[in-house]
Amino acid sequence: MIVVLKQNAPAAKVEELIGNLQNRGLKTNYSQGEHTTIIGLIGDTSQVNPDDLQALDIVETVKRVSEPYKLANRKFHADDTVVQVGDGAFGGGHFSVIAGPCSVETEEQVTEAARRVKAAGASFLRGGAFKPRTSPYAFRGLKAEGIELLLEAKKETGLPIVSELTSLENIDLFADVDIIQVGARNMQNFDMLAELGRCNKPILLKRGLSATLQELLMSAEYILSGGNSQVILCERGIRTFETATRNTLDLSAIPMLKQMTHLPVIVDPSHATGISSLVEPLAKAAVAAGADGLIIEVHPHPEKALCDGAQSLTPDQFDHVMDSVKKLCELEGKQL
Amino acid sequence: MIVVLKQNAPAAKVEELIGNLQNRGLKTNYSQGEHTTIIGLIGDTSQVNPDDLQALDIVETVKRVSEPYKLANRKFHADDTVVQVGDGAFGGGHFSVIAGPCSVETEEQVTEAARRVKAAGASFLRGGAFKPRTSPYAFRGLKAEGIELLLEAKKETGLPIVSELTSLENIDLFADVDIIQVGARNMQNFDMLAELGRCNKPILLKRGLSATLQELLMSAEYILSGGNSQVILCERGIRTFETATRNTLDLSAIPMLKQMTHLPVIVDPSHATGISSLVEPLAKAAVAAGADGLIIEVHPHPEKALCDGAQSLTPDQFDHVMDSVKKLCELEGKQL
Amino acid sequence: MIVVLKQNAPAAKVEELIGNLQNRGLKTNYSQGEHTTIIGLIGDTSQVNPDDLQALDIVETVKRVSEPYKLANRKFHADDTVVQVGDGAFGGGHFSVIAGPCSVETEEQVTEAARRVKAAGASFLRGGAFKPRTSPYAFRGLKAEGIELLLEAKKETGLPIVSELTSLENIDLFADVDIIQVGARNMQNFDMLAELGRCNKPILLKRGLSATLQELLMSAEYILSGGNSQVILCERGIRTFETATRNTLDLSAIPMLKQMTHLPVIVDPSHATGISSLVEPLAKAAVAAGADGLIIEVHPHPEKALCDGAQSLTPDQFDHVMDSVKKLCELEGKQL
Amino acid sequence: MIVVLKQNAPAAKVEELIGNLQNRGLKTNYSQGEHTTIIGLIGDTSQVNPDDLQALDIVETVKRVSEPYKLANRKFHADDTVVQVGDGAFGGGHFSVIAGPCSVETEEQVTEAARRVKAAGASFLRGGAFKPRTSPYAFRGLKAEGIELLLEAKKETGLPIVSELTSLENIDLFADVDIIQVGARNMQNFDMLAELGRCNKPILLKRGLSATLQELLMSAEYILSGGNSQVILCERGIRTFETATRNTLDLSAIPMLKQMTHLPVIVDPSHATGISSLVEPLAKAAVAAGADGLIIEVHPHPEKALCDGAQSLTPDQFDHVMDSVKKLCELEGKQL
Repeated sequence: MIVVLKQNAPAAKVEELIGNLQNRGLKTNYSQGEHTTIIGLIGDTSQVNPDDLQALDIVETVKRVSEPYKLANRKFHADDTVVQVGDGAFGGGHFSVIAGPCSVETEEQVTEAARRVKAAGASFLRGGAFKPRTSPYAFRGLKAEGIELLLEAKKETGLPIVSELTSLENIDLFADVDIIQVGARNMQNFDMLAELGRCNKPILLKRGLSATLQELLMSAEYILSGGNSQVILCERGIRTFETATRNTLDLSAIPMLKQMTHLPVIVDPSHATGISSLVEPLAKAAVAAGADGLIIEVHPHPEKALCDGAQSLTPDQFDHVMDSVKKLCELEGKQL
Repeated sequence: MIVVLKQNAPAAKVEELIGNLQNRGLKTNYSQGEHTTIIGLIGDTSQVNPDDLQALDIVETVKRVSEPYKLANRKFHADDTVVQVGDGAFGGGHFSVIAGPCSVETEEQVTEAARRVKAAGASFLRGGAFKPRTSPYAFRGLKAEGIELLLEAKKETGLPIVSELTSLENIDLFADVDIIQVGARNMQNFDMLAELGRCNKPILLKRGLSATLQELLMSAEYILSGGNSQVILCERGIRTFETATRNTLDLSAIPMLKQMTHLPVIVDPSHATGISSLVEPLAKAAVAAGADGLIIEVHPHPEKALCDGAQSLTPDQFDHVMDSVKKLCELEGKQL
Repeated sequence: MIVVLKQNAPAAKVEELIGNLQNRGLKTNYSQGEHTTIIGLIGDTSQVNPDDLQALDIVETVKRVSEPYKLANRKFHADDTVVQVGDGAFGGGHFSVIAGPCSVETEEQVTEAARRVKAAGASFLRGGAFKPRTSPYAFRGLKAEGIELLLEAKKETGLPIVSELTSLENIDLFADVDIIQVGARNMQNFDMLAELGRCNKPILLKRGLSATLQELLMSAEYILSGGNSQVILCERGIRTFETATRNTLDLSAIPMLKQMTHLPVIVDPSHATGISSLVEPLAKAAVAAGADGLIIEVHPHPEKALCDGAQSLTPDQFDHVMDSVKKLCELEGKQL
Repeated sequence: MIVVLKQNAPAAKVEELIGNLQNRGLKTNYSQGEHTTIIGLIGDTSQVNPDDLQALDIVETVKRVSEPYKLANRKFHADDTVVQVGDGAFGGGHFSVIAGPCSVETEEQVTEAARRVKAAGASFLRGGAFKPRTSPYAFRGLKAEGIELLLEAKKETGLPIVSELTSLENIDLFADVDIIQVGARNMQNFDMLAELGRCNKPILLKRGLSATLQELLMSAEYILSGGNSQVILCERGIRTFETATRNTLDLSAIPMLKQMTHLPVIVDPSHATGISSLVEPLAKAAVAAGADGLIIEVHPHPEKALCDGAQSLTPDQFDHVMDSVKKLCELEGKQL
């Protein structure tokens, strides 16, 4: 960490600061330039809050040099983390697809979806029982009954299930859910992250609409630091000025995250674009960019979906996507 | 709502759609152009989800014409909502200032802050007991003890208190808190919003970092539709590409929201910028732009703050801000 | 185009507006709802400026339904435009790679780069003679001499050349340049676009850092409407809040543009990320997403580059990228 | 400037780098931590390109500590720059208003506008003769004739005039224009900036839609480094995800720029919002935030404007704005 001092900082105050920093176990490196004087902090700065330093009236700015995340940091964990559930795995050369309807609506709907996505090669069934909706007047999910229907579809098809937790109050209902999803809007729900750090299940952590990659990793760090090492990161589009697509899918996040962290990274092209015809090209692009998996919305009858029909694929369209994905995984040497 | 049809949409499917829409109680207006054919929907479309229509394969795009929020809409409630607590009020010509430390740390700290901000003219004491922090290694607040300390400061100074709820699990601790704050990261925590709609307390709803004004109003609509009409909106900076300030304070949101809604609008210049020297000019700008109040961080010793010291004012600096704010309120005919 | 009227618009003014619109050759469709009254405009609205209507005091908002671009619009030109120069072609199943140094520095540098990128399979040599630089103190290119060096490299290798025009004043120097590049910062330099519409050369039009896809197509429309139909669009990253990469590469722009327009679309992964290690995964992702080509920076000695060395590949790294790109083009059925 | 080295950087290469940096006249400060090793550069780094260093394979990242702009930097020029033309001045306590139509249309229009804005207290007449327009089908200004009409209005009213230069080709037409405006889209037209650095006229430099404050100052630095010290900066809204307003007016830019630079800063609330009813509250907010002036669109008949009518004020509305602005300037001790 680099502390840039104000030009007129009195020597006594500077010495006091250096003393304080050394008392916290940090080595300091003082360097005086003509116009700029800086103090370099050497040691474990992950627990130093730059804001504390910034608040001092002798400080102009503070710049982090080393990353504030440790457990999620590739530098300290060179090997890929592999998250495995049943036959599906993410990371370390393993590639898996999660597919299913945006929200669970009926037994027929979710079972048909499960059968079809399994046949096409998906390893996980997704389905929303609790749906975060912008409007209080929109359908908000079947809740406990939705989880029940997912578990029935799991029993019938053998597919492990993935579903989103929107409030800690409901966590008991997720006891048999295989992967708990933290949605984009909850990426910085720190109470939820801390609690999930204490549970023994893989967590699918979606990037927030306006979260930087570093913030995504800090949220993963919450879960990891609680003792749960099974975190899957998911890029699902960020908010930009562009309005042609619902969000802007940031595929550069894949190779960038792969350098920053050892955690697996998957992509959600359905929510990223909101447009079903863009799902296939972007699913393929995600594989080519090095993703460890995909999460895709599939609905037996998108035109009747109670939620996000515009971005859902039909089972036939999904078959086509999976054909392309398989060929690319083969080319990339990924094990699907 | 306007439904733009694809060029080659078969007549039978179009008729079926029109029939369905009319069955939902909407009038339709069909208009065929050379290159574009549209169906206009007339009636209460707030419960029609554009995504349902967008999913149809005969539909090219769907455009909302009327706003999806009703209870928050100025069109249906011409008069300003006034939220009053004790001697402080927001809206309808009333202007109030909420001030205090980012997080509650000690009895001395919060009491000194309370005395000073009251003396300077603030009507509410703010203080965080539960702190959302990006890093799992940072101080996350005194929790229940923090609420206790706020209540003691309230007893001593008479100032009503404002504090942030970060998880529904803790709501019972907020029984004596006067205004419950929903932080930017929880603006779309819909379970929390729904629950707060059932409580009988004013809610300070902060705009999310990447939330549009319409989304902010949809979140207010959640609270209003639950039966709680006391919602105060708060602009606190949005996330943009600019890095000189922590966020970009969107002051155009004030007059824009004033046209869109009848709810009071206040501004948080401290979090918006993250830089204490920018608080005064932006607090003044907020008054001039028509805000109904301010929320400002004040700490007796910012350089020792456990959180966000860089943006906190000293009590003396706050005195200066309040002098300026008072003069501007007088000029604007606002009752402080 | 849809004109939404204010609730209290006087009938006489509305009638006057309808009359004016009909006098401009448009059919109108008047539709009165309980809360919202709209006028639909039918006919060629590409020459109607929504701002003209928005300025009227009886108008609440104006929404475009049909696209404001005609010549660039896929709806009116179903077939892909193919831009061909020598052996290289973009669009309609043809894929080409443009490669070379960010800026032309010496004869050795540009000739070595040309030989190596040709050997690796590139069809075009790029090189900047006029360099837009943020700082007035940075190297701004060899100018006329740079163009000379490119032409020599072309003579030696046979590769057609691509170079950026930064000011119309220099256009005469570009007489023998095969493709003129309009940089991101000049995407809305309308005088330049209009002039290039009158020249008989392919134009490589880069998307501006904060340009929507519609604005990119409006800029293409400038060139097309001047009579020059050879426009290649280039996605090169947009500006967002993310700071881990220099810009955010918007690969969803590829399939989206393919639906909106018939023009070829290529991708610049070098400028998008600013990090050489991200170029290969994103180049591959671009092919998988349906791009018609790539533009990649290659420098014989990136560590000695006078400009943007951090994003340049070595010739050996470029060989590796081209191997991957070729395999993907084969899989996609693209003719490289 | 801080150079962060990769963990495994070989000592020999590090020594070579240090030698090279010292040969460029910089002092270096080497500091080795457990996980991070950095080299601090001391001296004039404004001419060191971080990209050069970033390209080295032993370098992880490079961070600037001191600002890359010198002539525009408040640190080296503590006193406010005052730009004075006729009776109007910007900066150093002087406040001026520039007003007039978006584009010059007719003699009557521009003369009436000039008379009215002068009567209301504006010190400068603005008017566009060359109009950058997104659509090739839109009105692009009267060009040379437009400048003529402005000069006539100047003769009649005595108001100095401000007009936008969109291409260097037309610069001779601007010989009698008092302040040359560089529009947002040309903020990084470096050829134009360099040329304007050689002219002896005040330059009104508008911030680009996606330009950081540092980039704005680097563009000012181009003009200053050419020898022209009369630069007025203008905040006119940046591009964000928000769609309720055309752009997001960044008023925090005013006090932030005031700390970074000595140049005067004015605000354009008309273009920032695109909505005439928002102009007054934001004009007032700009004054309260510390702006040195305003530029506001006024049209005798906005509903007949050929360009941007939706954001233009009528002369009567402008009178009202000026009344408010005058009161605020008085309160702020600004000399209008």
